Amino acid sequence: MLITKVTGLGEARQTKRTPDELIVEEPMSIQLDGTLTATTMRTPGNDFELAAGFCHTEGLLGGASIVGVRYCVDGSAVGSELNIVTVETGGRAPQPTPRLGNVSSSCGWCGSEQIDDLCARLAPIPSSEAFDLDVIAGMPDRVLGDQGLFARTGSVHAAAAFTRSGDVVLMREDVGRHNAVDKVIGSMLLDPAQTLPAESDEQFGLFVSGRASIEMVQKAWAGGFSAVVAVSAPTALAVDAARRANLMLAGFVRGTTFNVYAPERL
Amino acid sequence: MLITKVTGLGEARQTKRTPDELIVEEPMSIQLDGTLTATTMRTPGNDFELAAGFCHTEGLLGGASIVGVRYCVDGSAVGSELNIVTVETGGRAPQPTPRLGNVSSSCGWCGSEQIDDLCARLAPIPSSEAFDLDVIAGMPDRVLGDQGLFARTGSVHAAAAFTRSGDVVLMREDVGRHNAVDKVIGSMLLDPAQTLPAESDEQFGLFVSGRASIEMVQKAWAGGFSAVVAVSAPTALAVDAARRANLMLAGFVRGTTFNVYAPERL
Repeated sequence: MLITKVTGLGEARQTKRTPDELIVEEPMSIQLDGTLTATTMRTPGNDFELAAGFCHTEGLLGGASIVGVRYCVDGSAVGSELNIVTVETGGRAPQPTPRLGNVSSSCGWCGSEQIDDLCARLAPIPSSEAFDLDVIAGMPDRVLGDQGLFARTGSVHAAAAFTRSGDVVLMREDVGRHNAVDKVIGSMLLDPAQTLPAESDEQFGLFVSGRASIEMVQKAWAGGFSAVVAVSAPTALAVDAARRANLMLAGFVRGTTFNVYAPERL
Repeated sequence: MLITKVTGLGEARQTKRTPDELIVEEPMSIQLDGTLTATTMRTPGNDFELAAGFCHTEGLLGGASIVGVRYCVDGSAVGSELNIVTVETGGRAPQPTPRLGNVSSSCGWCGSEQIDDLCARLAPIPSSEAFDLDVIAGMPDRVLGDQGLFARTGSVHAAAAFTRSGDVVLMREDVGRHNAVDKVIGSMLLDPAQTLPAESDEQFGLFVSGRASIEMVQKAWAGGFSAVVAVSAPTALAVDAARRANLMLAGFVRGTTFNVYAPERL
């Protein structure tokens, strides 16, 4: 796409028409056993991971295993089929209720009830040695060096799974922070060569390139991650959730400086 | 809240427990004439503006006027009442369909259909003189100087309405970019001392502190803004929508340098 680059103020101003690569967003609908559960604006690619990860991290599977993921058509517009993905459990997952906005359709919740609900659904992360602080400090450089889409567009979020020694196991980029996380977790769910942290003896951390809202902590918790490392700030609710989950939460990781929000004491 | 600040690597590392102010997010449900339309994670405050702005920018009012906005109880949990806001049109707005995720519940849409739908609902912004490029370059400094929550928490989005001469008319902050924009537009809708750009002879620009997704352009368009100025990048779909809307779109506004994505030629 051709855009105009402007540099300088007033009489010193110069403008130049130049090609530019922009980040793509397209709507994708996620169905569970044929029932629509959500529509999200995502960067196309790794769509099956996104759909599977979303169903898992939002607790929609109810313990059922995924037996298939496929694109589907709704019978009318053939061109639209790549924007609908169905996750299949053979009807073993509970009937999904459509999600409204960012959270479930429960009306009038407050944040602490949201955390109580997560606690009812998810066991605390097993206690273990804390992540090495030097590993945490080094994650942005390790992940962002691999961030191809960001390098080209300057505008996309990244999420990555990393080991205790700081090795990046896999990284995904998306226009939406939550989508990038769902793609990481969906990949670990679907790829037989990978193991979700929840089902592994190893501990994994989850890196997110932006802020850590409660959604990020919820998704990491559902995947069994032991730590969340965010480049920017967490919200108060995210910190509460991480402390309840026994999940380590670090934020503002910049250079050799960062904050640890959970546990309350190192 | 007490957190741990970590500085330095390896043996040079120092940790310090210190109080920290975190950005608050709490769920809020938005009802239109008593029917639930969406639940969003927002920073509490200016809730009526958020609800009114959301209903307007999402096209839910169908031309009906807002006759009231109030908190409501659902009859069970008294403590939850401040998390439900009802926008009232006296039943003149069309019956809302619940929104799924970021977009409407239409399944299998692609982005170009989304833009076609906006074009069917919203008239193009009337042609007028382009915004002064020096005004655009100066907006981040003008707005971010006022950004109180950001200064305290380092992690919140801002949206602001500004005039052709670069005066900031009003600014709102929120954990969600889209919420900050809805609060600005809702304030202009509800405050008799203000006028929505769509109903004004004056032109206004909308500043957003992050990226410009199609949602941001849709909301600016619905409010009648003539320009969107974003600190970070727009998506490809946002640029398409802005060009169709006849809306000026600038991004990566940093120092004296920025990009103009719409119009295609200055």
